[in-house]
Amino acid sequence: MKTIEIYDTTLRDGVQDVEINLSLTDKLRVAKVLDDLGVHYIEGGWPGSNPTDKQFFKEMQNYELKHARLAAFGSTHNPKHKPENDANLKSLIEAKPAVATIFGKSWDLHVTDALRIPLERNLEIIKNSIAFLKPHFEDVFFDAEHFFDGFKENRDYAMAAIKAAFDAGAGVLVLCDTNGGTLPDELRSICDVVRQELPEARFGIHTHNDSDTAVASSVEAVKAGASQVQGTINGYGERCGNANLCSVIPALELKCGGEYRCLPEGKLSHLTTVSQFVNEVANLRPFLRQPYVGRSAFAHKGGIHVSAIQRNSRTYEHIKPSQVGNEQRVLLSDLSGRSNILEKAKKFGYKLDREDALVGELLAELKDRENRGYEYSSAEASFELLFYRIMGWSKRYFTPINFRVTDALMQGEEVMSEATVMVKVRGQVEHTASTGEGPVNAMDRALRKAVERFYPCISEVRLTDFKVRVLSGTTQASPGTASHVRVLIESADKDSRWSTVGVSHNIIFASWNALVDSLTYKLFKDDPRKWPNHKS
Amino acid sequence: MKTIEIYDTTLRDGVQDVEINLSLTDKLRVAKVLDDLGVHYIEGGWPGSNPTDKQFFKEMQNYELKHARLAAFGSTHNPKHKPENDANLKSLIEAKPAVATIFGKSWDLHVTDALRIPLERNLEIIKNSIAFLKPHFEDVFFDAEHFFDGFKENRDYAMAAIKAAFDAGAGVLVLCDTNGGTLPDELRSICDVVRQELPEARFGIHTHNDSDTAVASSVEAVKAGASQVQGTINGYGERCGNANLCSVIPALELKCGGEYRCLPEGKLSHLTTVSQFVNEVANLRPFLRQPYVGRSAFAHKGGIHVSAIQRNSRTYEHIKPSQVGNEQRVLLSDLSGRSNILEKAKKFGYKLDREDALVGELLAELKDRENRGYEYSSAEASFELLFYRIMGWSKRYFTPINFRVTDALMQGEEVMSEATVMVKVRGQVEHTASTGEGPVNAMDRALRKAVERFYPCISEVRLTDFKVRVLSGTTQASPGTASHVRVLIESADKDSRWSTVGVSHNIIFASWNALVDSLTYKLFKDDPRKWPNHKS
Repeated sequence: MKTIEIYDTTLRDGVQDVEINLSLTDKLRVAKVLDDLGVHYIEGGWPGSNPTDKQFFKEMQNYELKHARLAAFGSTHNPKHKPENDANLKSLIEAKPAVATIFGKSWDLHVTDALRIPLERNLEIIKNSIAFLKPHFEDVFFDAEHFFDGFKENRDYAMAAIKAAFDAGAGVLVLCDTNGGTLPDELRSICDVVRQELPEARFGIHTHNDSDTAVASSVEAVKAGASQVQGTINGYGERCGNANLCSVIPALELKCGGEYRCLPEGKLSHLTTVSQFVNEVANLRPFLRQPYVGRSAFAHKGGIHVSAIQRNSRTYEHIKPSQVGNEQRVLLSDLSGRSNILEKAKKFGYKLDREDALVGELLAELKDRENRGYEYSSAEASFELLFYRIMGWSKRYFTPINFRVTDALMQGEEVMSEATVMVKVRGQVEHTASTGEGPVNAMDRALRKAVERFYPCISEVRLTDFKVRVLSGTTQASPGTASHVRVLIESADKDSRWSTVGVSHNIIFASWNALVDSLTYKLFKDDPRKWPNHKS
Repeated sequence: MKTIEIYDTTLRDGVQDVEINLSLTDKLRVAKVLDDLGVHYIEGGWPGSNPTDKQFFKEMQNYELKHARLAAFGSTHNPKHKPENDANLKSLIEAKPAVATIFGKSWDLHVTDALRIPLERNLEIIKNSIAFLKPHFEDVFFDAEHFFDGFKENRDYAMAAIKAAFDAGAGVLVLCDTNGGTLPDELRSICDVVRQELPEARFGIHTHNDSDTAVASSVEAVKAGASQVQGTINGYGERCGNANLCSVIPALELKCGGEYRCLPEGKLSHLTTVSQFVNEVANLRPFLRQPYVGRSAFAHKGGIHVSAIQRNSRTYEHIKPSQVGNEQRVLLSDLSGRSNILEKAKKFGYKLDREDALVGELLAELKDRENRGYEYSSAEASFELLFYRIMGWSKRYFTPINFRVTDALMQGEEVMSEATVMVKVRGQVEHTASTGEGPVNAMDRALRKAVERFYPCISEVRLTDFKVRVLSGTTQASPGTASHVRVLIESADKDSRWSTVGVSHNIIFASWNALVDSLTYKLFKDDPRKWPNHKS
């Protein structure tokens, strides 16, 4: 089995993504998680380009990595300087990582048009930069920027650039499809040439997804002999992003006949968690259709598919979701019907018959709610409550009577939010008021004031996410602010996380409904006596 | 040049996507747009499976398509019936499309485990179903479900299944990677076998993106001789989606040496608009990093890239954005700096010097606002207003003084929203009030009441989208309802669309700020006298 080195550049190329801004703390947290996952290299940033990255390397000097080696990124030296006077190279050395990775030009167009120096001078710069860095690091890698575009236009020059790096002692020659424009078959045949002409060199692959083929290209390069793959978690990166490591790693480990190993034994199943973690730190909405690790990657909506996977999951799943730490999801929708409901019921411990009247009732209720804009596939706690209500669960921990929220701007820059809430708890009417940072926060606080006195466990609930989705498309006469709004609230306590949903044309009322469901679900799940009459 | 037929299944396989629900009207609108784009086939739905699809085909009988032929989807007949008594086959005939596409089993596992019939019987069913349909359609296509998985496990049987379809007269044998688990190189070699063993058959390719390689696989299949590619706009579809036609089409037309043609002359440049349109109808948040047609596909954030593309756009762009109807975007961010500002200024007609004090002022202001959560890359109207303010534009069409919004639930199911607004317009203080469907709608109406009397053109503004983003990640002590909130509002009048942004910890105040910017921008852009002192 051949080890393919995973070189993660989420913290460097990934943060070039339009949607990403990471603080120093964010970067440190991500680095630790990548190390736990067991990647071979973590490219932490470009210390010569900004203070956050400089500080990152400083802080990392006090942290002992378990698996990974830390790499810093930079460029070949400025044509006007000597290596020893180049601030960029010096900042790499000051950063003290195990590895320095420098990029240099291998496309003649960039040498003449961007650097504006003679072609020969660029080869010298590559050589001198690497030779200068070598003694200061365990290893120096060379990113051959635009290698494939360069090869297509001036093959000899592109080859001369990587040969210069090789001769100067670069440990890995990283072939970069910087613009992401090369299709996998062409990329493969170029890699074959490199392998043939430089059989003794180790080479790596760095692709971008502009042609929607970065993962396929990375796999092809490995098959052509590349021993290192560079990419990012979730495919973040400038323009269309980098090769997505969450897809490359499982392809190599699970789909190439057991020929390649990327992560330490047992780590592949952490991939989904890592993907979600990085997404959360970057504060991005997850891409549901993301292969392998996405929330929909093993989600089944069509009725036919659902009945088939219930018999044999191989029928509609290319791998076992658990291999990458993901899970199968059976969705509720009018396309699916009874099979899905039965599957959910089974999960809650009910063996219902297909023709049971309760199944029909639940289906009708769901259909009605979906028509009103409810979406239960991402609000499973709300669905669970609805399910038990229809199964006859009638306990009410508290009953909302009314609320009022006011937001007012008074000749200043700041707005005051105040909520009053009236709820009945254990037969008593509680009337509470609170201000808040925004109307939903004010309602949340007022509602907790009313309920917490009776149920102290409410204090453990934290609201971890709050999402708003406007539902109408362009089909309505007046979309925009008069549209229906769906609010999803994600909550957590020390043991678990749950999501609830509320829908209304009023964003405040939708939030209120999701809040009420969230607190109810907390009380429900912690309640040892939730079933006074039936079911133990 | 070889024509590759594009078979769009957005309206059938695409709607299996977790996030998609299309109404009848939505489907009709999308069909017309696909026809304008010039795809060869539009698979409109599965008339035997639900009433919306049945109605869709009925309505389409009155509509004359310019380019495309309409296809209906169904399955081979039920093993218990004869073809002539099979409701599913009959519903295809009743739908009266030009083409019927039926799927059948080609993986022995599915025949024995899902259908539970002898292998030989399945071949008969394929043959009889196609033979029965043939006389009723211009063409009948056979979707060989799970062809690649079947081929890998029982090659002879998979081949026998497509041969049965071929013998019965299927016009195209569509090889389906239903589970999306086959990597492009393996898929290519299987296609090569099919080509060799059935040289006289026309074949097509239908892939899913579970391995993140659906586009690469589709291109490989075409190179192996496939003359039809099935896929969906934006790659919608169950689990990880189908092959994304917005990536497959440009790859074939622009990246294969001019060997293939997919769309009528001049239509490729409509691709971005079509992608956006379908996204809008489906009411989904666009995937920014989507190759070719995504909003970030040609967006440059890093300072080095920005200066290079200003010299020669080939340096960091794999194709000309205009070839697919997209455009280059230069983003504002602290990674980028002055080059980006100068580029924007140029767009607004200002030739600023790199060292101009105004550039520094603008950069500082932007940095400060970005730290507070503003995001101008998707709120270009707000940026334009900010830009002109800093350039000295001081006109105020109206000045907000204060507002108050109340939402109250009073022992009922519905919430009342009421806003009062006080603004100064042309020296007069206007104090207005309005109810609304939700607090933002109430504010919008009250604000318009105050301003419209002085500026009647305000009545032309429609709010077309309203998005809310909660900004804090998990790094804050108490995220969720106490987080910062960014509101983006998209507005339109008869000529144009613009986006504005507001940020606050209070969702209402953030919305208010975005609303104020939206109306201000409308007045600004329509104002022939916006420059009283300088610039004509």
